[in-house]
Amino acid sequence: MNLIPVSDIADLRISAFRDVKERDLTGRQGLFIAEGEVVLRVLASPASRCVPVAVLIAEKRLEALRDILERLPQDVPVHIAPQDVLDGIAGFHLHRGILALGRKPEPVDLGVFLDGLPERAVLVGACGIGNHDNMGGLFRNAAAFGAAGLLLDQTCCDPFYRKAIRVSVGAALRTPFVEGVKASAMVEALEARGFEVLALTPSASEALAELRPAPRTAILLGSEGPGLAPEVIARCRPLAIRMSGGFDSLNVATTSAVALHHLTAVKGL
Amino acid sequence: MNLIPVSDIADLRISAFRDVKERDLTGRQGLFIAEGEVVLRVLASPASRCVPVAVLIAEKRLEALRDILERLPQDVPVHIAPQDVLDGIAGFHLHRGILALGRKPEPVDLGVFLDGLPERAVLVGACGIGNHDNMGGLFRNAAAFGAAGLLLDQTCCDPFYRKAIRVSVGAALRTPFVEGVKASAMVEALEARGFEVLALTPSASEALAELRPAPRTAILLGSEGPGLAPEVIARCRPLAIRMSGGFDSLNVATTSAVALHHLTAVKGL
Repeated sequence: MNLIPVSDIADLRISAFRDVKERDLTGRQGLFIAEGEVVLRVLASPASRCVPVAVLIAEKRLEALRDILERLPQDVPVHIAPQDVLDGIAGFHLHRGILALGRKPEPVDLGVFLDGLPERAVLVGACGIGNHDNMGGLFRNAAAFGAAGLLLDQTCCDPFYRKAIRVSVGAALRTPFVEGVKASAMVEALEARGFEVLALTPSASEALAELRPAPRTAILLGSEGPGLAPEVIARCRPLAIRMSGGFDSLNVATTSAVALHHLTAVKGL
Repeated sequence: MNLIPVSDIADLRISAFRDVKERDLTGRQGLFIAEGEVVLRVLASPASRCVPVAVLIAEKRLEALRDILERLPQDVPVHIAPQDVLDGIAGFHLHRGILALGRKPEPVDLGVFLDGLPERAVLVGACGIGNHDNMGGLFRNAAAFGAAGLLLDQTCCDPFYRKAIRVSVGAALRTPFVEGVKASAMVEALEARGFEVLALTPSASEALAELRPAPRTAILLGSEGPGLAPEVIARCRPLAIRMSGGFDSLNVATTSAVALHHLTAVKGL
């Protein structure tokens, strides 16, 4: 372990961690900040698509994290600081006491990604997801149900935003995704490779529960307010999740889990 | 409408709305604070189990909210204030510009509640849910899938906490629930009335997806960390949500949606 004690919040060696709340909002060329033990564990694991660059932790967390930290490459600096110095660096009280700086993977090309998928595959396509909790939830659910990856349209928020990573419990660091794909191009590329593209929308007359999934299936999800654009829905097989009681409102990440469970776990319908 | 202009943050008539962030944490005898248009709409609707007591909104929101406000009882004061005064009263920037004070319904007795249920009913039992986002999500999903209500054990957090209400998109104000029920008493009371009690747990060998639900079914959910206690699971029919990819982690509210969808929408298995 490359341990580096830090006692001064102005220490230049930890400038990447300074005021992370503000910096998160402005983005950072090819890098991201992650927080918490669960996420650090993913970042240090072979499953991660991202490279750890540096770590900053509270002194008191060192022993409990030793097994994770020892799995980091030798050259990754592990800065340790008293909690108050850590809080001063981060710009807020960091009760988890764990920050990591990572490098994002190279962007994935849509065609190359799709061409590399197996005969049986489930994908999640997300359009207009601007809320980081929802983005994190989509990644968590995609990973939990073994989806091959996610396709994000050009209006989606960054899955490498600190909160999205945290809500994803690290899935954002390991599950492949393609960014910046227009919905129409998404549908076209998927259909060209034999995917059945399902549009999840409350307006559909067909129910998800009655679907017999094709070997290659993609589900398209829109944002909670406007949902998917009518012209996108028109190019897909629209499906609704049946609800009752006059309260037809599901969170978009929740919707992904209900659909993915049906696609991957409900056999022999 | 009983419109009352407010221009002074020290105005005693709006003291119930003062520093709501702090007060939320300490609780408030029989009252709760709700925020946002969607929740206000539920509070003002016949479906609400709660009584509106007072409203405080930003001046600029008045016209857009007129249809909701006119549905409130005549004696409910509608305080209107400039945005900066509103922010000063609330103690933080209230970008939604809408706060409502409501009165909680009378507590519901477990036996009385269960005895009033129809022959076909689905219930959600929650044990140890301490996170308000998750509590709100459980209510939202219970309402969306037409569950008859929720049973909360004595270690659950308050569903009338501001954030829980917001995440529930108002379901916390309309869906019946019984509080403070020990898990063992919950299982006993449910079984006595012919409910099959399912314990959702990753440790189960039986998969949710293969279940043929009984006419009366309750699903029990534990907190994300420790989950349900082994002695509770032992008294129920344990079911797992099948996951794959070595990432077996679902949010507890998400779990409720997957289970409720299976119980209420998947027919003819």
